[in-house]
Amino acid sequence: MQFAAPPAHAASTSSAERLLAEYQIVRGHTERLAAALTPEDQCVQSMPDASPVKWHRGHTTWFFEEFVLGPHAQGYAGFDAACRFLFNSYYDTVGPRQPRPRRGLITRPSAGEVGRYRAHVDQAMAALIGAGEAPGALVLLGLQHEQQHQELLVTDMMHAFAASPLAPAVLPGWREPAGMEGEAGWLDLAGGLATIGHRGGGFRFDNETPSHLALLRPYRLADRCVRNRNWLEFMQDGGYRTPTLWMSDGWEVVQREGWTAPLYWRDNEAGWAQMGPGGLAPLDPRAPVRHVSWYEADAFARWAGARLPTEEEFEHALGLVALHEVTGHVWQWTASPYRPYPGFVPAAGAIGEYNGKFMVNQMVLRGGSFASPPGHARPTYRNFFHPDRRWQVSGLRLARDA
Amino acid sequence: MQFAAPPAHAASTSSAERLLAEYQIVRGHTERLAAALTPEDQCVQSMPDASPVKWHRGHTTWFFEEFVLGPHAQGYAGFDAACRFLFNSYYDTVGPRQPRPRRGLITRPSAGEVGRYRAHVDQAMAALIGAGEAPGALVLLGLQHEQQHQELLVTDMMHAFAASPLAPAVLPGWREPAGMEGEAGWLDLAGGLATIGHRGGGFRFDNETPSHLALLRPYRLADRCVRNRNWLEFMQDGGYRTPTLWMSDGWEVVQREGWTAPLYWRDNEAGWAQMGPGGLAPLDPRAPVRHVSWYEADAFARWAGARLPTEEEFEHALGLVALHEVTGHVWQWTASPYRPYPGFVPAAGAIGEYNGKFMVNQMVLRGGSFASPPGHARPTYRNFFHPDRRWQVSGLRLARDA
Amino acid sequence: MQFAAPPAHAASTSSAERLLAEYQIVRGHTERLAAALTPEDQCVQSMPDASPVKWHRGHTTWFFEEFVLGPHAQGYAGFDAACRFLFNSYYDTVGPRQPRPRRGLITRPSAGEVGRYRAHVDQAMAALIGAGEAPGALVLLGLQHEQQHQELLVTDMMHAFAASPLAPAVLPGWREPAGMEGEAGWLDLAGGLATIGHRGGGFRFDNETPSHLALLRPYRLADRCVRNRNWLEFMQDGGYRTPTLWMSDGWEVVQREGWTAPLYWRDNEAGWAQMGPGGLAPLDPRAPVRHVSWYEADAFARWAGARLPTEEEFEHALGLVALHEVTGHVWQWTASPYRPYPGFVPAAGAIGEYNGKFMVNQMVLRGGSFASPPGHARPTYRNFFHPDRRWQVSGLRLARDA
Amino acid sequence: MQFAAPPAHAASTSSAERLLAEYQIVRGHTERLAAALTPEDQCVQSMPDASPVKWHRGHTTWFFEEFVLGPHAQGYAGFDAACRFLFNSYYDTVGPRQPRPRRGLITRPSAGEVGRYRAHVDQAMAALIGAGEAPGALVLLGLQHEQQHQELLVTDMMHAFAASPLAPAVLPGWREPAGMEGEAGWLDLAGGLATIGHRGGGFRFDNETPSHLALLRPYRLADRCVRNRNWLEFMQDGGYRTPTLWMSDGWEVVQREGWTAPLYWRDNEAGWAQMGPGGLAPLDPRAPVRHVSWYEADAFARWAGARLPTEEEFEHALGLVALHEVTGHVWQWTASPYRPYPGFVPAAGAIGEYNGKFMVNQMVLRGGSFASPPGHARPTYRNFFHPDRRWQVSGLRLARDA
Repeated sequence: MQFAAPPAHAASTSSAERLLAEYQIVRGHTERLAAALTPEDQCVQSMPDASPVKWHRGHTTWFFEEFVLGPHAQGYAGFDAACRFLFNSYYDTVGPRQPRPRRGLITRPSAGEVGRYRAHVDQAMAALIGAGEAPGALVLLGLQHEQQHQELLVTDMMHAFAASPLAPAVLPGWREPAGMEGEAGWLDLAGGLATIGHRGGGFRFDNETPSHLALLRPYRLADRCVRNRNWLEFMQDGGYRTPTLWMSDGWEVVQREGWTAPLYWRDNEAGWAQMGPGGLAPLDPRAPVRHVSWYEADAFARWAGARLPTEEEFEHALGLVALHEVTGHVWQWTASPYRPYPGFVPAAGAIGEYNGKFMVNQMVLRGGSFASPPGHARPTYRNFFHPDRRWQVSGLRLARDA
Repeated sequence: MQFAAPPAHAASTSSAERLLAEYQIVRGHTERLAAALTPEDQCVQSMPDASPVKWHRGHTTWFFEEFVLGPHAQGYAGFDAACRFLFNSYYDTVGPRQPRPRRGLITRPSAGEVGRYRAHVDQAMAALIGAGEAPGALVLLGLQHEQQHQELLVTDMMHAFAASPLAPAVLPGWREPAGMEGEAGWLDLAGGLATIGHRGGGFRFDNETPSHLALLRPYRLADRCVRNRNWLEFMQDGGYRTPTLWMSDGWEVVQREGWTAPLYWRDNEAGWAQMGPGGLAPLDPRAPVRHVSWYEADAFARWAGARLPTEEEFEHALGLVALHEVTGHVWQWTASPYRPYPGFVPAAGAIGEYNGKFMVNQMVLRGGSFASPPGHARPTYRNFFHPDRRWQVSGLRLARDA
Repeated sequence: MQFAAPPAHAASTSSAERLLAEYQIVRGHTERLAAALTPEDQCVQSMPDASPVKWHRGHTTWFFEEFVLGPHAQGYAGFDAACRFLFNSYYDTVGPRQPRPRRGLITRPSAGEVGRYRAHVDQAMAALIGAGEAPGALVLLGLQHEQQHQELLVTDMMHAFAASPLAPAVLPGWREPAGMEGEAGWLDLAGGLATIGHRGGGFRFDNETPSHLALLRPYRLADRCVRNRNWLEFMQDGGYRTPTLWMSDGWEVVQREGWTAPLYWRDNEAGWAQMGPGGLAPLDPRAPVRHVSWYEADAFARWAGARLPTEEEFEHALGLVALHEVTGHVWQWTASPYRPYPGFVPAAGAIGEYNGKFMVNQMVLRGGSFASPPGHARPTYRNFFHPDRRWQVSGLRLARDA
Repeated sequence: MQFAAPPAHAASTSSAERLLAEYQIVRGHTERLAAALTPEDQCVQSMPDASPVKWHRGHTTWFFEEFVLGPHAQGYAGFDAACRFLFNSYYDTVGPRQPRPRRGLITRPSAGEVGRYRAHVDQAMAALIGAGEAPGALVLLGLQHEQQHQELLVTDMMHAFAASPLAPAVLPGWREPAGMEGEAGWLDLAGGLATIGHRGGGFRFDNETPSHLALLRPYRLADRCVRNRNWLEFMQDGGYRTPTLWMSDGWEVVQREGWTAPLYWRDNEAGWAQMGPGGLAPLDPRAPVRHVSWYEADAFARWAGARLPTEEEFEHALGLVALHEVTGHVWQWTASPYRPYPGFVPAAGAIGEYNGKFMVNQMVLRGGSFASPPGHARPTYRNFFHPDRRWQVSGLRLARDA
């Protein structure tokens, strides 16, 4: 799949009407995801990196209360003082907060109460937007922020469910996307001076700017992602036991954690199974491999006599050539450390804590996964995680020097 | 308070009727405790030492299913195979189990489903007992086991609630017991050859046997527990900063954990407050100090020019002299390591894993706390915890050589 | 071997002469042990529990400087101010000190310089003793203290050498003691009221007092220690894989540390070898097993249908019956937690930190090992270590209820 | 200081004579550094990241034995089989090795024995080189490798000495370089297409290649490094207490480690002192700040309204403008993650493990420090460390967008 356009609106609708429609679509999607989960499901936190579903629901709501309603909605009455403390994430400028590894201890407010918190804020937001007094850019940022948490809601819940002997489904009824039959081919790209980063209108995060030129050498890019069957070959060839394939830091993790397969793979009597959004299921050899760390992706590429593409190569190729599985399957690790673009300036105030403070030690992923909400990803979108993390829907696509 | 007799029954009732009544009283008490808690409350696990309320409810039920219904109720149909795995605690002979630190990840079955599991087992148990076919001793053991978990249910939930900014009440409406006004006095005891351990009829755990003689020197025992006001003096006198008062292992913990007061004490603007079963409340200087570790109790006693009583001294004094606050307030640390009595033989089979395997590295507590269910404690009862643990309702009573 | 008497002196020698001779014998033994070691050997620290040989040499010297020469030798000039900081061990009342896990970082003063420090103090001590002005009891305590460190010097150095691919010898030329041929037999003891603890003259540590009566039930005691061949049977019978044989805390360590044999055993192509004081050597099946933790000793006893003796049983049996291998082979774990004797009062001042502060979480060992210096052990001697420690020369002897 | 040329040789000397002279100069420098240290100094390891001096001396020798003499010197007799195991570093392809955190346990061979090992190998190398049979490129690599370890020898020893209360000098008599008086000024650079990486003859590491074009925007670069007096202002302005100045990962380290100043700074009664190569000395406010992590350098730059230069900016500016303190003072953190240059191919075989396997999670430093051996640094030289490391001689120079 390629990037989908954000939902279109009839030309006659006013800007406020469009914003409200967008607000309601995004906010409703969060609640639809949560509806498949029990109050207990929504409360659990399976590791410090993950957050409870209830916390995602509250935190995204807190964003609107803290940054939009508080400063902009005259006479707005906060829902509950405790929420300000409980649902702050990492905004050091805003105030103290529940320590991240202890978010799972927040049994109260209940899932139902958080639903009422959401309704309270939604009502105030609808009034503010309807009155044409909402700061549009900030509201859009809040919605994009909520979409990011929608993806985390899925991956965090799946991590907890994978630790349960019952292996419940986060997305009941989910199936692998169709069209995974073909063999990967190599696309030749000439490189040159490429324009990288977001230009023109529409929403973008600050880390996608400024748009700038990058010098690319000729390169080749695979038109499809690496598949589970490819990964099985890597495993059978001793990939997890061959130190020369690995970065030194990665090899240390392999040994310490005892990695022998992607996260969520289980070697049952009946063969490999995989914990997925639909629960535990037999491994589909045709599907793009997912839940591999950057270390694994990098080692696989070396084993395959290839390398990962840089984020500039990936972005440059989009639009020039036909790539399969850009979105809707897996995020794709790149060879690029997550760093500021030349001339990058973070936004002022608390909003400025959004992206810039993470620009070290992490690697960029491009594309989008089945857990990415519709219309959220963009060709210039920069996702990023530490190179040892595996609980995101992360896979890879190969590249080579021409 | 002194030890309360177990509930009496009319003389005319049959043995089976009495057992059933006892069964229903104990089982009902668990559900009454849980009724004040939400589904999310019941799911949370705040540290590896603690277990979720839902797990306590399930595990105590599993005990009856595994040890009573399975072997003794012909044609008994188990409620759910997953429960056998999920609700096993530490019985290595029974089979694999959910790792203890990950009990909080069991979001499913839900609290409601666990209620149905309990009802299913209760129905089968009622039939078995009513038919006069229940193994009485084993059922009694199961009920005593459930009572132990009732106390843990309260202390574990309180530990999680203490980590919440809302500080909810585990026992809504709870108040400090009355009658804490008097000053402590010293009681003189002659010692000699004392009979220690459980004799005669009635239920007892294996660790209370065999009854045996112990040689006691003359000693003095405080008739009341150490109070919060005494503890404040210890703190003001630098108790937590004076290494010579402490065991070497204890001093290491004090420094590593930064202890400066009992667990759950908070130094607010308005003075000391304490997290208790009723939520956060101002510290009552008259109440027995609680939530102190053995290390703290031992250091306090040294500071006070006294020592902790041995468990034999404590047991011997009961009945000879009038002690206040034996039960209903706090468990009381003794000077005695938890070790087998001379001639101790653990019960055969899985039941034998019950007490014996913990007989090293722990210290004995005697008495009983506000969280101990009615009729559970006995003068020969041996409670035990590691000397650094503080989340139990643990306090102390002083002793001296005569 | 049985307990050896301290070296005898001619009747005509004065008390000061005898003390000086004793001083020189003990101090000389330390230097003889160190003489087999290189400067680098003497500097290394292989784990926080162990100390460098150079530190042992300095710390035992510091004891005399700090507690004897400083207060008692008028005009004594200290050797070097840094030594006061570097060679304090755990005497919190004396002042700050080098953190224990960082003793191995003390590359300076050199081994040679520490030798000069020892000579400086020895000269002053000889003058003080010769002048008849030495506090005799304190000097004796210092010598006993030094003998304890002589044993640690051997076991700590052996721990470091066991981590070296060269496996050097701490005691070059050492051989297993002779006379290990016989089979163990059971000795019957009637028990009764036994007098436990040190009485009469001669040196004893404070923890051996006060002498008191203990009530013992009839018991049986093995006349020999458990041998390596017995331990091999335990291993072959799955001893390290059977959880029901183990204390719960011990089983956790077995799994976490992956124990499958005593410390220092290595399964080579040619069969089992053992790192010992003479370096790596084939395992002698006749020798008493050593370097087992209390957890292992306790599990072995359970497997053998026996138990460990209490320290009172061990002490009571000495003198009544003929026991082999009491000293000269291995320290022997008992069933007794290390706690104060009834009426125990620690010595006043810094000396009082000596034993009392360790009286929790540790188990008593009795007897004496090949590393114990001549004349150091006594029938009332209480050695003690945490139940998971294995780097001491620790083995076991079995007991049973009669 | 600027980069110094490698030592010149008379035009008439043969290539073999030049190589031998170079060999002897470099090898001799290692021994001169070690000569100021005692056998115990050379054995100690103060943290897993650091290695003992003796190990550096052995490992650099092992390099010549393993990669040069073994394959190229017919009939070469190895010095000692144990050295192959003990002195391998991280070459997984070569075989097993002493675990890195346990290098400090290698008390034997002694420092003297390692000196004999070096002499043995030096003799064989002299013969091989003299016979004109030495693989020149490999020998040069070995010498550059040894120079890298000369710098580590100094920084690792200083880390151990900083943990000693005696604070000995690694480089006795060392003084801060002269000429630190001036104020920093900004240099304007136009950017454009810059050629980056090593071209032409002379030695270079594989990570300096291939030479390639990089597109640079106009930028400004400070002509001097940040000074201790600047750092004191940052500290006084709350730099270590202001989360918005820090990367998120860095702020976590600041809080966990309690950083409030650069490593080796000590706040004495007489003001700030600094542990340096000459021992503990009063802090010189004019000297370039050193022993700061990348996190600190990055936070300082943000506080100063500037940023770190990229490695391409740094390399490009050299030669175009006059920079002070390029070498001889501190390595200078850049904004660049350590990644392969476009088209990078690691060398084949074990040598290929040299640089490539570290190309993730680390940041590039440029320049050279007082601990860098003469003639070792180059304008294209890429040094690299993880962003939390502080024991290297690391400082910074500021940059800005034009």
